[in-house]
Amino acid sequence: MVFWKRLFSNPSDSATSAPTSQFNGELLDVKGETDSQRRIFLSTERDIDLYELEELCDAVGWARRPLRKVKRALTYSFLVVSMWEVKGNRRRLVGFARATSDHAFNATVWDVVVHPSCQNKGLGKALIKYMIRQLRNEDISNITLFADPQVVDFYRRLGFVLDPEGIKGMFWYPD
Amino acid sequence: MVFWKRLFSNPSDSATSAPTSQFNGELLDVKGETDSQRRIFLSTERDIDLYELEELCDAVGWARRPLRKVKRALTYSFLVVSMWEVKGNRRRLVGFARATSDHAFNATVWDVVVHPSCQNKGLGKALIKYMIRQLRNEDISNITLFADPQVVDFYRRLGFVLDPEGIKGMFWYPD
Repeated sequence: MVFWKRLFSNPSDSATSAPTSQFNGELLDVKGETDSQRRIFLSTERDIDLYELEELCDAVGWARRPLRKVKRALTYSFLVVSMWEVKGNRRRLVGFARATSDHAFNATVWDVVVHPSCQNKGLGKALIKYMIRQLRNEDISNITLFADPQVVDFYRRLGFVLDPEGIKGMFWYPD
Repeated sequence: MVFWKRLFSNPSDSATSAPTSQFNGELLDVKGETDSQRRIFLSTERDIDLYELEELCDAVGWARRPLRKVKRALTYSFLVVSMWEVKGNRRRLVGFARATSDHAFNATVWDVVVHPSCQNKGLGKALIKYMIRQLRNEDISNITLFADPQVVDFYRRLGFVLDPEGIKGMFWYPD
C-alpha cells in the first residue's frame, strides 16, 4: 500500500518518532491526550484501503456498500479527508469524510465518520474544520451537507446554518 | 458554435422541419402547444454559450456570477441539462439545470431555471424528470437538492421527499 510506504519509507525508522514527520498530512493537537506515543493525522491522500474504510464504517453501523462503487465515489469526490491514529509504526484509519463539488461554487459533504473509540474528543470537529479549510483553499464558498437529526447541533456549532432563508433539503429515491 | 452546427448541418435545411431531427436531444411533447412551428428539446450537450446562459439566469433575476467560474462549474458538473426552444432555424436556451455527483451513489441538483416566458407549461417538470432519468441511467440512486421555499411543493410533486427521517439541509458560508 503506497500510503503505508510513504509513511515509513525506511522500515528501520519504525522504532523512532521520526516517521510521523514523513506523513503527508497534518498533525493534530489532541487536547487531553494522555498517550504520548499516539499521534492523530489528517490527510487528503486518496490512497485509502477500501477494506479498512469498510471496517471503519462497520464500526459505526453503516450498511455495507459495494466496494466497486465506494472506489468510484472516492475517485470522483472532489475532496477526500482521512484521519489516522499513528502509534509507533502502526497506523489506523479512525476518521473519514468526502465532498462532491462543481470545483467552482458548491461542495456537498458526505460520509462523515469517526471511529467510536475516538469520538467525544473533538476529532470530528477537527475533521470538518480541516475539510472546510481545504474547500476554502479551493475557493469553494457554498459548503453544504445533509445532517442526520442527532448531528445537526454538531454542525451548527461548526458554523453550518440549518435551512437558511427557508431552503430545504430534499431527496429523491428510486421506488 | 458547435451546437448550432449540429442542429443545422446544412443551412438549406433551415426552412424545413427536418433539422430538428438532427438535434442531439429529446423532443418534448408540450401539452396545449398552439404554435405548430415551435419545438422544445432537452439535451445533455455541454456546449452551451455562457452568455446565453447568463441571459437566461438574468431573466429570472439571479445574481451574476463570474463566467470563468460558471464555465468551470459546467465542466465539473456530472450532468448538465439544457432545454431549447426551436423555431424554424432559430434556437433559444429556455431552461437549464445541472448536478454534481460522486458518479456512484449521490447527485445534487443545482441551478434549475426555466425562462419566465416558458413557465407554467410543465417544462420545469419535464426538465427535472429528464434529469432524474439521466441520473438513474448512471445508477445514481440518491438524488438530492436544496429547494427554495417557493419550489418545495414543485419538487414534492416530482417525488422528492422533504427532510426524510429528519435529515436536514445545512449550509456553511464564509464570514
